[in-house]
Amino acid sequence: MDDKTLELSLLFDFFGDLLTEKQREYFDLYYNDDLSLSEIAELAGISRQGVHDNIVRAEAILRDTEAKTGIVSRFSQMYRETERAEGLAREILEKSDDPEVRRLTLELTALLGDLKG
Amino acid sequence: MDDKTLELSLLFDFFGDLLTEKQREYFDLYYNDDLSLSEIAELAGISRQGVHDNIVRAEAILRDTEAKTGIVSRFSQMYRETERAEGLAREILEKSDDPEVRRLTLELTALLGDLKG
Repeated sequence: MDDKTLELSLLFDFFGDLLTEKQREYFDLYYNDDLSLSEIAELAGISRQGVHDNIVRAEAILRDTEAKTGIVSRFSQMYRETERAEGLAREILEKSDDPEVRRLTLELTALLGDLKG
Repeated sequence: MDDKTLELSLLFDFFGDLLTEKQREYFDLYYNDDLSLSEIAELAGISRQGVHDNIVRAEAILRDTEAKTGIVSRFSQMYRETERAEGLAREILEKSDDPEVRRLTLELTALLGDLKG
């Protein structure tokens, strides 16, 4: 998956349900299932241009929503911080052989795993 | 702040920038600054009904965006899990007097504080 596709898939994961049904469907087939515009046009029974217009509009809505809200960037930042916290928990496990400290740290590690979703 | 105001303030924090300038401005004066519809109407130089319509529309957009995306609920869940992780870090500090474990746990606690934003 190239960088643009990865970025759009992440935006789609958060904001996909703000799109119309057609926008969502064609976007998903194009970016997530890797079908060509012509293949989607044939499946959907509309013109290649019609598929293209829906996908371009979907991309614009997804990017505009992120530009306004910064929500995906906020989540990505939290994800990176959670990974750093997991690293610290691993270090605690390496340093401590106190069974209670280890039990608490393992519980904390499981929670951090959930946090990353 | 009552429950409805608290809920709407949280939605506004995440999705406020998806509103039009007028919707955002009147919503903010009404819910966050606690002005009355008449006071906002006087400030803005439009009718009380005009202010009301903008605020009702703003509420609908905020609630609809959350109903579709579930983003605020996802953040709230992460917030609660982070609080549980902070509780475990506190317990580790109570149990351990190893200076290295304590240093790592304090660093982890600071990260969890950042995570809550």
